Amino acid sequence: MIDLEVLKDSYVTTPSRIVMLVVDGLGGLPHPETRKSELETAITPNLDRLAQESACGLTVPVLPGVAPGSGPGHLALFGYDPLKYLIGRGALEALGIEIDLQEGDVSARGNFCTVDSQGLLVDRRAGRIPSEVSIPLCRDLDKIRVDEVELRVYPVEGYRFVLHLRGQGLSEMVSETDPQRTGMSALEARALAPEGEKTSRIVNEFVSQSREILKEEERANMVLLRGFSSLPHLPPMGDTYKLNPAAIAAYPMYRGLATIVGMRVIPTGKTFSDELDTLRQHYQEHDFFYIHYKPADAAGEDGNFEAKVKALEALDSYIPRLRELEPDVLMIAGDHSTPAIMAAHSWHPVPFLLRSKWTRGEGVDSFSERSFANGSLGRIPATQAMLLALAHAGKLSKFGP
Amino acid sequence: MIDLEVLKDSYVTTPSRIVMLVVDGLGGLPHPETRKSELETAITPNLDRLAQESACGLTVPVLPGVAPGSGPGHLALFGYDPLKYLIGRGALEALGIEIDLQEGDVSARGNFCTVDSQGLLVDRRAGRIPSEVSIPLCRDLDKIRVDEVELRVYPVEGYRFVLHLRGQGLSEMVSETDPQRTGMSALEARALAPEGEKTSRIVNEFVSQSREILKEEERANMVLLRGFSSLPHLPPMGDTYKLNPAAIAAYPMYRGLATIVGMRVIPTGKTFSDELDTLRQHYQEHDFFYIHYKPADAAGEDGNFEAKVKALEALDSYIPRLRELEPDVLMIAGDHSTPAIMAAHSWHPVPFLLRSKWTRGEGVDSFSERSFANGSLGRIPATQAMLLALAHAGKLSKFGP
Repeated sequence: MIDLEVLKDSYVTTPSRIVMLVVDGLGGLPHPETRKSELETAITPNLDRLAQESACGLTVPVLPGVAPGSGPGHLALFGYDPLKYLIGRGALEALGIEIDLQEGDVSARGNFCTVDSQGLLVDRRAGRIPSEVSIPLCRDLDKIRVDEVELRVYPVEGYRFVLHLRGQGLSEMVSETDPQRTGMSALEARALAPEGEKTSRIVNEFVSQSREILKEEERANMVLLRGFSSLPHLPPMGDTYKLNPAAIAAYPMYRGLATIVGMRVIPTGKTFSDELDTLRQHYQEHDFFYIHYKPADAAGEDGNFEAKVKALEALDSYIPRLRELEPDVLMIAGDHSTPAIMAAHSWHPVPFLLRSKWTRGEGVDSFSERSFANGSLGRIPATQAMLLALAHAGKLSKFGP
Repeated sequence: MIDLEVLKDSYVTTPSRIVMLVVDGLGGLPHPETRKSELETAITPNLDRLAQESACGLTVPVLPGVAPGSGPGHLALFGYDPLKYLIGRGALEALGIEIDLQEGDVSARGNFCTVDSQGLLVDRRAGRIPSEVSIPLCRDLDKIRVDEVELRVYPVEGYRFVLHLRGQGLSEMVSETDPQRTGMSALEARALAPEGEKTSRIVNEFVSQSREILKEEERANMVLLRGFSSLPHLPPMGDTYKLNPAAIAAYPMYRGLATIVGMRVIPTGKTFSDELDTLRQHYQEHDFFYIHYKPADAAGEDGNFEAKVKALEALDSYIPRLRELEPDVLMIAGDHSTPAIMAAHSWHPVPFLLRSKWTRGEGVDSFSERSFANGSLGRIPATQAMLLALAHAGKLSKFGP
């Protein structure tokens, strides 16, 4: 509830520490044969024990029926109404690879793709080319010059890159060139409002020059652009809550999200184990840590039930390392559900757990969607999770006389 | 959530079909002797089986404690905030009998009533005179002329009629003439705001001429008018959700409601069986169907517990005919509760069930208020039902990056 002005004077700074572990795509759905969800199938003694000592419930990321991307899913957990604070894909991706975005800049997410001799899309991800192939191509595209604009192309990972524009009179009001399906040509970028005219012209010129540069490539012979966006204006989380928040995330997009809400992003390695090392090393420096666990979502998105179960069991094995730090408040949350049977983000409420010196368990004996539905926290909007965390940490004082 | 601008781009048109069965007054309360509600008493094997395969929960029609009329109850299920989108009774009644309402027209719901020799009300419904008696009387009243206004009187059913006014400078800001109790005189219509002056004058003149025309009648010797209203401005449901919605309802008021939200109203017969025939015949023409079941509410309003049980059992017997169509999403919802022990609409949350290929049951084994309280959908505002329906039908895409 980052914009609830009336609570502003209730937040207080204290030495207590909060750790929010966001398990990407945490929630799932029952397997058609076993009728057990990924969490119910996984053997997770550490998570179960934690549940037995915690306050448990379910968070609704946005609204019933609304499956969020990671952006809205995370913003909600940080207390930002995801229907009000919108982040463009391009800006998120650019921040994720630590491009120093400035006011007025416009970024887009780029895909290398494959088109046939008539220019029709054959593969929207260019056969998922590896970074070794895409990095040199990004370097070639980075040489493109259009008018007076500063135009840069940055590799992200595999077939993905960021197009970054800086200059006068740019606007995010530009339509995407990705038709979202094969068998069609890439679309022309169009202005979605008069202020988007200049930017759409620059984008189309960039695409045209890219086509020429890439034409001899076997797989990555064209580009698609989406999510044109400028930096959103979000109130910094630290200011509102009177916190000194830090983020530890192995994946760029989540570092981008943390940047948007004003967290310090602490450099870390490529694995969750690296993240835990980073957390331990910097544990004295902050009073709020957001730490991100990716594998559950990746397995869910692949529709791999068994892999998601394994990812959750792997997570379970790391829980003792989190508990060793003895945070005053430990939360385990999810930005959204990613049921393996749907192979996609979904709208289903997500398990949420909070442990502090004020929680002692409440009859919930295992970590799952079904058992958490009967937890004492009930079903709350994800935007209210931070209020609970601050309260349990003694950082949210009595409201009203 | 018809007015959530930020979701507008998330709705997508697909070939999947949604059927929303609204059981009027679905919810109930336990009988004082058996301590079982109407739904718990009724033998409903088909509804129970459906519950075992579905996602279940309870909808709150407006707010806890607020018992809605059918108008707000239905609007909420279609995604319209019933506290924001208000419909006057007169407009609803007029639309229900397919009067072609135009902007600026004012309609009122009329009752024939019985007054004694001093003009005091003896029966507010004129002994529930049948349509055979009221239709000729409406024809007589229809001849009344006041000033320059186009004034029409249309029979509805039994003692009920619609007064419809068309002309310059009309307004719905007119008070009702029905004192809502016997032993009193009918009230004068008063302007509720300066713009209602002209209309209240016309209305009082109409009432005075009606009294004269009806004075020899034994039962229907006077009229009462309420719910003066103009056409409300509602965003069409089809536009927002990118749906092609149709309504099938045997009763006029529900057809009126469907018209207000921009559904196509498909003509049908007098019974729910007729409605199911109509649904089958037109099933290929639309991707969303609202179909209405009335008898549960009628029995509840009469305070007849046993009749409501029977009405629910009759409903149960029709479920196989709905399931034969294999809709991608089948919902069973109620616009409000009508507990027989209260003999009135109530505020109690209403059972809500949704079946799709993503639902597999969740331990709820019977169709009732009590068992649905433990369903996975929890307790949601009725306005969120459409979001769930669209999500399960693949018609609500991921929100945000």
